[in-house]
Amino acid sequence: MVGRLVECVPNISEGRRRDVIDAVVGAVRLTPGARVLNVQSDESHNRSVITFAGEGEAVAQAALALVERAVELIDLRDHRGEHPRVGAVDVIPFVPLGETAIEECVGLARRLGEQIWATLRLPVYLYAAAAAAAHRVRLPDIRKGEFEGLAEKMLQDGWAPDFGDPHPHPSAGAVVVGARYPLIAYNINLQTTDVMIARAVARAVRESSGGLAHVQAMGVTAASGLAQVTINILDASKTPMARVFDLVRVEANRHGVEVAESEVVGLVPLDAIVDAARAHLRMHGFDRGQILEFRLLE
Amino acid sequence: MVGRLVECVPNISEGRRRDVIDAVVGAVRLTPGARVLNVQSDESHNRSVITFAGEGEAVAQAALALVERAVELIDLRDHRGEHPRVGAVDVIPFVPLGETAIEECVGLARRLGEQIWATLRLPVYLYAAAAAAAHRVRLPDIRKGEFEGLAEKMLQDGWAPDFGDPHPHPSAGAVVVGARYPLIAYNINLQTTDVMIARAVARAVRESSGGLAHVQAMGVTAASGLAQVTINILDASKTPMARVFDLVRVEANRHGVEVAESEVVGLVPLDAIVDAARAHLRMHGFDRGQILEFRLLE
Repeated sequence: MVGRLVECVPNISEGRRRDVIDAVVGAVRLTPGARVLNVQSDESHNRSVITFAGEGEAVAQAALALVERAVELIDLRDHRGEHPRVGAVDVIPFVPLGETAIEECVGLARRLGEQIWATLRLPVYLYAAAAAAAHRVRLPDIRKGEFEGLAEKMLQDGWAPDFGDPHPHPSAGAVVVGARYPLIAYNINLQTTDVMIARAVARAVRESSGGLAHVQAMGVTAASGLAQVTINILDASKTPMARVFDLVRVEANRHGVEVAESEVVGLVPLDAIVDAARAHLRMHGFDRGQILEFRLLE
Repeated sequence: MVGRLVECVPNISEGRRRDVIDAVVGAVRLTPGARVLNVQSDESHNRSVITFAGEGEAVAQAALALVERAVELIDLRDHRGEHPRVGAVDVIPFVPLGETAIEECVGLARRLGEQIWATLRLPVYLYAAAAAAAHRVRLPDIRKGEFEGLAEKMLQDGWAPDFGDPHPHPSAGAVVVGARYPLIAYNINLQTTDVMIARAVARAVRESSGGLAHVQAMGVTAASGLAQVTINILDASKTPMARVFDLVRVEANRHGVEVAESEVVGLVPLDAIVDAARAHLRMHGFDRGQILEFRLLE
């Protein structure tokens, strides 16, 4: 249904200034063959997630145009937000859709990384399926120390960038580029303003500290003032959203706290929504082929 | 997305003999312009739900062909099943999709009713939006007494058929034809073999005995031997599946019984699935525009 398309989901370090966000997204819109599917800005994270898609080459060209505008307009030296980041553009994942192979996305990531350094003098780390070493696969490991710690980190053993000199760009830091399967960016707000509870819940549910496989999580404060568990589900076909939600609820309940609500950031595959409905309704045999709109499109 | 289409969802009184079901569905497949979307047979109900769609006239023609085959192959005098029925074809609803108006479906129902009597000498009741009187709107009211009580019922005040003489067809009984908005046919199986509990739960959750608006329900025994609450949700945009499921669970719990699982019979609109996911995940702000596959299709 979606052909040989590539999705690209850059996260930029600006979630408040509407004109800056519009200008950066505009660079994508002006690239022929790239279609913006979603833009979602979070004020407290001070970060926007831009989703666009198209054929590989068009998508890579749009990504380069986006980085150019972001480097011009976003200065990390003034940037404050709840979400960790290493640069004006924090991360650029290429995601295979439909029949597209992950290898095609790895190739796009490497070529884009080369171009970003060549044209903008912005150092680039490769991550996920495009990573050059095992210790550089996970985004949280690359991000650790953030923009503020980058100059020091780049000189450490094993942490030189994949493209560029080991010195951060003065205002734009560095950028992490890679290829990965679709992930779900998912926030769960707790009925409390105590961020320590969100942090404890995040530790309990994420893979790295003994929680659920394919789950990354941290505790932050949402724009509403509520404590938030902000989550990436790296493979929702194995670890469904409902399981993550249910465990967050149980862990929050240990602290006497309820879940207020949850939200998907950006887009989500249909199967993730079907899985959540199936979980609630115990509808074990349900098949997405039973959705009227899909039968009509076939 | 779906243009001026009409959906038709005949329920035939055969859920066991595969050759008969195939022959009846085949009559639809052979009609140009009618597309079969789904066939779902239930052995314990001894009933199949066939869903097809197309432009109004093609769909009506396919429905007539289906009734012809069903009358030929299904004899109600030998028919036993858990689900009430008045004939070889129990009910034929026409459902407007996309931009289609309900009035168009009412017109199709009336013309089909006329033709069924004229060509097959099978008496027809009109129901739902096509009903000729208020007491004949609800399907359960028309069905009351079933095939076995039909000869007597047809002679009662207010219960003559809309088309045809007030005498059932000897083997095929009568058929109920009408127009309605999309409904969800939904079964919830309980973790018990005691059908009395399913009946008590059905009474508690259905509109007619003080339960949820837009909900019809009855208690039967499923093919697995489990007690089942079999439900029609007439307007899932007002009474979502998750609310029905949750209330069935609470009512079953009063009897010390859990819900084993649930199933949608036939097709379900995407919004119903999104609503169920939203309910479980408390994802109040989620919009179906965030589903990747839909953004790509726009």
